[in-house]
Amino acid sequence: MHQLRFEHENLTQRICFGSGSARTLLAAEVERLAAERVMLIASAREAERAGSITAGLPIAHRHSEVRMHVPVEAAEHARACAARHDVDALVCIGGGSAIGLAKAVALATGLPIIAVPTTYAGSEATTVWGMTDNGRKTTGVDARVLPRAIVYDAELTLSLPVAMSVASGLNALAHCVDGMWGPRADPIDQALAVEGIRALWIGLPAVAANSRDLAGREHVLYAAYLSAAAFSSAGSGLHHKICHVLGGAYNLPHAQTHAVVLPYVLAYNAPAVPHIQRRIAAALGASDALDGLQRLRRQLDAPKALSDYGFRESDIDEAVAAILPGVPDNNPRQVTAEDLGHVLRAACRGSDPATISQPIESQP
Amino acid sequence: MHQLRFEHENLTQRICFGSGSARTLLAAEVERLAAERVMLIASAREAERAGSITAGLPIAHRHSEVRMHVPVEAAEHARACAARHDVDALVCIGGGSAIGLAKAVALATGLPIIAVPTTYAGSEATTVWGMTDNGRKTTGVDARVLPRAIVYDAELTLSLPVAMSVASGLNALAHCVDGMWGPRADPIDQALAVEGIRALWIGLPAVAANSRDLAGREHVLYAAYLSAAAFSSAGSGLHHKICHVLGGAYNLPHAQTHAVVLPYVLAYNAPAVPHIQRRIAAALGASDALDGLQRLRRQLDAPKALSDYGFRESDIDEAVAAILPGVPDNNPRQVTAEDLGHVLRAACRGSDPATISQPIESQP
Repeated sequence: MHQLRFEHENLTQRICFGSGSARTLLAAEVERLAAERVMLIASAREAERAGSITAGLPIAHRHSEVRMHVPVEAAEHARACAARHDVDALVCIGGGSAIGLAKAVALATGLPIIAVPTTYAGSEATTVWGMTDNGRKTTGVDARVLPRAIVYDAELTLSLPVAMSVASGLNALAHCVDGMWGPRADPIDQALAVEGIRALWIGLPAVAANSRDLAGREHVLYAAYLSAAAFSSAGSGLHHKICHVLGGAYNLPHAQTHAVVLPYVLAYNAPAVPHIQRRIAAALGASDALDGLQRLRRQLDAPKALSDYGFRESDIDEAVAAILPGVPDNNPRQVTAEDLGHVLRAACRGSDPATISQPIESQP
Repeated sequence: MHQLRFEHENLTQRICFGSGSARTLLAAEVERLAAERVMLIASAREAERAGSITAGLPIAHRHSEVRMHVPVEAAEHARACAARHDVDALVCIGGGSAIGLAKAVALATGLPIIAVPTTYAGSEATTVWGMTDNGRKTTGVDARVLPRAIVYDAELTLSLPVAMSVASGLNALAHCVDGMWGPRADPIDQALAVEGIRALWIGLPAVAANSRDLAGREHVLYAAYLSAAAFSSAGSGLHHKICHVLGGAYNLPHAQTHAVVLPYVLAYNAPAVPHIQRRIAAALGASDALDGLQRLRRQLDAPKALSDYGFRESDIDEAVAAILPGVPDNNPRQVTAEDLGHVLRAACRGSDPATISQPIESQP
């Protein structure tokens, strides 16, 4: 039995979940805030859907200037609009960009946000904000940017293509796995992460088989919430440190990189933490975590090798050097350059991750 | 795959967990609140321990008039003291009575509470307050009474006698089980409840075997938090409706009543919700939930029959009539008077709860 020593922070947030109920749930949350002048943030592409979801709300300003990565100028313009229209609440409908813009306004103004996510990105469940200035990204953590309420309506995700849903779902799965052993992972994060893995295991195959499977969509959306909540509390573990470098330095596609790398990190770490391995396995309906993950990946026809996305074995030494300093001290296995080379080589080739599970000779 | 439709509310609260660290964790939380005039609520019996935990804090008033069930006069006196001493934060050290008194002050004043629990009662994790006026109990729910921070130091629970720890732990287990199917039980409650069951299954046998087992104590204390959080969100299910009537009308002892009744309720409900049954079972390290619970109860030498505590078979009809109207509509099985009679008769005699699991003929 291991010792329990942790700090966990809960923040005020209502999670309202109901398919087909976005409009009624949103109306109730706006009323709960007693908001009288709402700023609606939704891209022009979302305008029609946003219009029907917000019908009847006291909207003082509709803001459709939603851009990826929240450019600083866009944030400043949105803040100016919020001030000019004297708004008292922000409602954002969309994915990470719309939610990110609402967060940028909340950061400066303290205005409460109600988020209606239409993707599985999970930003609505975190205190993390981000903005870009001439392509340079700044991020921060502030409790004020956490939406006061989230309205989850899985019908809004029915139109996400299967491939994107699967990639995004596997990204959520990676958040859950890192949520088990990230630098600040606590038992509550782990409980939420395990629940997220379970929900993805239920939902993702259903969505992959039929993009209109509403119950499957609900489970993936629910898991997106859990994965973001667990991951933002636990912090980036080995998996995300690897993917961050691969995405940044080698321009590999985000979702595919996560999908490929995850089984190798799991294979590497899991043998060192059998109690965590067993919990991940159980959540995947398997007796072994890696077996369970690989079975799920096969069902989803998930990406297999980094070489398919432009990463080359000749990049490995450089990548290892860039990743190693960022590996959390509390990673279940102490990570050597040689180990990391093995992991990246296997991920590059798409070879069987079970080979990584074997104790590596250089390992103490 | 079932549909997901729920509302879940997270409230701001920090959970700080570290054995032997009450003093340093508490000091950090007082500083985080920037409190300069603390009111310390701790019974005279706790005075010495409370003194050492709070050494160095800016204490404006020490309040030791802590009584069971928070009599209204005691609450009013404590509020007057808070005002007279111009306090800006409440620190309570103790069990349900100390925390209950702090809640009564917070309810009237909005003062933030930091709770340092010394029992497994769990009140620190809920928005529920209670007071008694001439023996009549009033309870309510208010977000203001939720402690802003909880400092859990399992060393403070080492002196709880084993029998009381086991009874209190089984009470927490009952909270978790009702957290799976209470009237407002949502998937997040269920995930927390399952984690609580798991922690009790780990911790309780260790504490029963050795009252000084610190890691065991940590797991029970952690579970007490989870069980209270899950239960207060999910609301009273069948188990608590039964125990509430038995405790009130027949004066049966609280903890023992819970300990006896739980397996019968589990046996009755579980067959109707196989997915929940499997999750409880897994958390108890068993393939069947009832088997797992009974194995744990044997390890703990838990109470077996209500007749041992003064309940008689001739009381059953009256008890059934009192319980039935309170049974939640969404209980996994529709409960008839006949069913409830079977459950109470078995619990009274202490007969094998597995007999309850059989479909009862009157069941639709």
